[in-house]
Amino acid sequence: MTRGFFIGRFQPFHLGHLKALEWILGKVNEVIIGIGSAQYSHSLQNPFTAGERVEMIWRVLRTRGLLSRCIITLVPDTNGRHSIWVAMVEHYSPRFDIVFSNDPLTQRLFKEAGYRVEGIPFFKRDLYNATRIRKLMLRGDEWKEYVPKEVAEYIEEIDGVNRLREIYLRLQQ
Amino acid sequence: MTRGFFIGRFQPFHLGHLKALEWILGKVNEVIIGIGSAQYSHSLQNPFTAGERVEMIWRVLRTRGLLSRCIITLVPDTNGRHSIWVAMVEHYSPRFDIVFSNDPLTQRLFKEAGYRVEGIPFFKRDLYNATRIRKLMLRGDEWKEYVPKEVAEYIEEIDGVNRLREIYLRLQQ
Amino acid sequence: MTRGFFIGRFQPFHLGHLKALEWILGKVNEVIIGIGSAQYSHSLQNPFTAGERVEMIWRVLRTRGLLSRCIITLVPDTNGRHSIWVAMVEHYSPRFDIVFSNDPLTQRLFKEAGYRVEGIPFFKRDLYNATRIRKLMLRGDEWKEYVPKEVAEYIEEIDGVNRLREIYLRLQQ
Amino acid sequence: MTRGFFIGRFQPFHLGHLKALEWILGKVNEVIIGIGSAQYSHSLQNPFTAGERVEMIWRVLRTRGLLSRCIITLVPDTNGRHSIWVAMVEHYSPRFDIVFSNDPLTQRLFKEAGYRVEGIPFFKRDLYNATRIRKLMLRGDEWKEYVPKEVAEYIEEIDGVNRLREIYLRLQQ
Amino acid sequence: MTRGFFIGRFQPFHLGHLKALEWILGKVNEVIIGIGSAQYSHSLQNPFTAGERVEMIWRVLRTRGLLSRCIITLVPDTNGRHSIWVAMVEHYSPRFDIVFSNDPLTQRLFKEAGYRVEGIPFFKRDLYNATRIRKLMLRGDEWKEYVPKEVAEYIEEIDGVNRLREIYLRLQQ
Amino acid sequence: MTRGFFIGRFQPFHLGHLKALEWILGKVNEVIIGIGSAQYSHSLQNPFTAGERVEMIWRVLRTRGLLSRCIITLVPDTNGRHSIWVAMVEHYSPRFDIVFSNDPLTQRLFKEAGYRVEGIPFFKRDLYNATRIRKLMLRGDEWKEYVPKEVAEYIEEIDGVNRLREIYLRLQQ
Repeated sequence: MTRGFFIGRFQPFHLGHLKALEWILGKVNEVIIGIGSAQYSHSLQNPFTAGERVEMIWRVLRTRGLLSRCIITLVPDTNGRHSIWVAMVEHYSPRFDIVFSNDPLTQRLFKEAGYRVEGIPFFKRDLYNATRIRKLMLRGDEWKEYVPKEVAEYIEEIDGVNRLREIYLRLQQ
Repeated sequence: MTRGFFIGRFQPFHLGHLKALEWILGKVNEVIIGIGSAQYSHSLQNPFTAGERVEMIWRVLRTRGLLSRCIITLVPDTNGRHSIWVAMVEHYSPRFDIVFSNDPLTQRLFKEAGYRVEGIPFFKRDLYNATRIRKLMLRGDEWKEYVPKEVAEYIEEIDGVNRLREIYLRLQQ
Repeated sequence: MTRGFFIGRFQPFHLGHLKALEWILGKVNEVIIGIGSAQYSHSLQNPFTAGERVEMIWRVLRTRGLLSRCIITLVPDTNGRHSIWVAMVEHYSPRFDIVFSNDPLTQRLFKEAGYRVEGIPFFKRDLYNATRIRKLMLRGDEWKEYVPKEVAEYIEEIDGVNRLREIYLRLQQ
Repeated sequence: MTRGFFIGRFQPFHLGHLKALEWILGKVNEVIIGIGSAQYSHSLQNPFTAGERVEMIWRVLRTRGLLSRCIITLVPDTNGRHSIWVAMVEHYSPRFDIVFSNDPLTQRLFKEAGYRVEGIPFFKRDLYNATRIRKLMLRGDEWKEYVPKEVAEYIEEIDGVNRLREIYLRLQQ
Repeated sequence: MTRGFFIGRFQPFHLGHLKALEWILGKVNEVIIGIGSAQYSHSLQNPFTAGERVEMIWRVLRTRGLLSRCIITLVPDTNGRHSIWVAMVEHYSPRFDIVFSNDPLTQRLFKEAGYRVEGIPFFKRDLYNATRIRKLMLRGDEWKEYVPKEVAEYIEEIDGVNRLREIYLRLQQ
Repeated sequence: MTRGFFIGRFQPFHLGHLKALEWILGKVNEVIIGIGSAQYSHSLQNPFTAGERVEMIWRVLRTRGLLSRCIITLVPDTNGRHSIWVAMVEHYSPRFDIVFSNDPLTQRLFKEAGYRVEGIPFFKRDLYNATRIRKLMLRGDEWKEYVPKEVAEYIEEIDGVNRLREIYLRLQQ
């Protein structure tokens, strides 16, 4: 029984994340989904709360019958104290065997800690990336096609796009 | 669709917790299980990490087919800054309607914040309580009958009883 | 008896703030003046300490006979954990009924928490704004006409303009 | 113009505090009232929030015409990092000349930092002390005669005694 | 070239610590001396600042010609977040091969992280232990014979015994 | 016996730092070397851990016979709470008489706290500065001639240049 660890901020959880998750599920039996920078919200980079991100992902997993193979957890950001970050992950996450990440520093930190680390094939990264999706939301452009439909519905329910715009307006003042 | 919030430290998750959860599931459609004091571990009061507690509960939910009605999340302790605790819960948890708790301060704090709060019938609290179960572990007495069998197996896997004893020995030195 | 809440960093407290305060005092019986980002000082954005800002405002209120209708308090910045900020305000401030603010995010956060929120008419914002006043100080231009005379005197007493210049020099090195 | 600094947790502000304040006002022109351990509330030692303590004291000062000679401020606890506490006070407080305190460690820390420090005559300390007053509240005994009447009224308004009892009940569970 | 890690709070550094250090130096080429709970001072358990503890140990090492084989460093306490403590040590300390400690939890945490851990023979622990030495200081009993003479001189220089007594008096009030 | 205090982030410790240290040692008997922003690492500005910086400097001092005149210590960054920084230095450092620094804000903060402060002659600052050296490392240019040879060797040992590049790659993604 092998377990993978998949970390992201998931602001929001989009179709690129879902493709990556499905790819990882093809390689390992179970996946821990670690929601990073968990303490932040209501900023341009991190509009959604930890709880909102938990719910987005949980709904996606439930609809697709993945709840029995995926465990969602939360990992706080260490505010620049990067050398303790792997230990933070180990505290906040169930045990895992392989780290799936394309971030060079994440790769290095986990390798130094003795973990097996693997990259993830990007899925149309120019379209499916969270920074771009937040920009589409701000501009009033179409963004829903880039996220799972459960996420689109959920962001509607919590009036997420208006929140993002109010955060943006603040920075313009 | 009503949702309950059920908070605990779950050190460990025992049969009293499970009975409470089942009772709450009889009242509401979905339950958020909030694991409190999430940042602590390796102490007599809080031997298990956040990730270990997530895994314990996830295994119990999976075996019993409850994953599609329960969402697990983590809530840090506020170190005596109790007046921000409800806001912390609101950040770290998906939205909920009713708080289920027997703790008078939790009840007061959530009521003041406008939540509906309900007590939970205790299930043989003299037997099923986490402080007692940790003492049984320390003394080498039988403790497994007081926790779900998934939890007992998991604590064995991670050598949890020996961890607790080493923590205790430290305090004796 | 209605009470307003008026939040700002007050770096420094200027005539625009004073006009806003007077306008709010025309609407409510008492005003809580919340000094935000209270833990910071000695930076370009936040040159003055919490205590210095308390004193500036207290002197202005005393001269103008407003001490019996205004309560000064301090609110720390939450370092990007915006979702707990309203709870922080509630902890650090006496109770209030209406929030007066033009910041879209502040408005949203307080509205979501159930508060009545009102905007404040800007008073010659191109002249009376703290960023501009700090720039005038740095350049050696005339700045005193934009702040209440008690504030100008106080900044002189504590040698505030030289502090700001030394902070600026550091960033140039 | 001499200024005194008077620090306390003021849980609650009682007649012993008021007598001390009046005595200090006989010695100096102005007094900074520093509310310590500002971040805590809802515990047996610290039942009241920072804002509630600000309001208690402000009401007492207003009734007695002392607002123009007293400045209220807030000072957080340093969690055992005592050597930075004087610097914290200096950040959160307007400037002062003399520290009034009977606490040996406060006296030492401020003396080492170069401040003049003076003791305060105790006023019937066996009756007028905050620990005793909180115990009277818990037991349902008469406590109002030991605090200024503005404080008694305010604690009634916020239902403070019941809050204290619920905190106590929690610890009994 | 083997390196040991020797952790302690060193409140104060006494002859038991020195014997332990000498014993470790008989086993490895170089020793990292980690001063733990570095952020605390001015309490009964932790009377001395981090800098004072650095100086005590540095003077002992200098007199005895050990500076070229020992490196002093500081490690903060993690406030109950024990699972990140090994990572904190790794951040604040130069690399080392063997951990020397008699504390069961320290032993477990470092073993789990893959380190070789060894115990240290106690040297008359009933006489040479820091809690006892602090009690002797408080009572006015003879304590200097239990610490290296450099430490005794240094504690005199900084008036350390009176500091400890003032801390104690505070707790008696 | 006079003692100097010499603060820096030492990312890495270079020949400009060494020249400055030698110049200070010509003025005072002993020097405290304070490693600032101690909690950070693995970023472009702060690639090396606290322990790595301790080791770099210790090796340089050992080779050059300076260990008996220099004490290395660590000082955390205060995250914008600049007014407590001098108190942090006083906590983490052995006592000193003169502060050696060219930073205008450091000079002001220490002067206000009553310290004697002196500037340090710059030694070919266009060549010997840490930002430039980190850029040379990133570009694959020659950097070793700008640091003491012990530092160059140490950075090789810990594979420091590759770490820096991986941090840089992350920011490019």
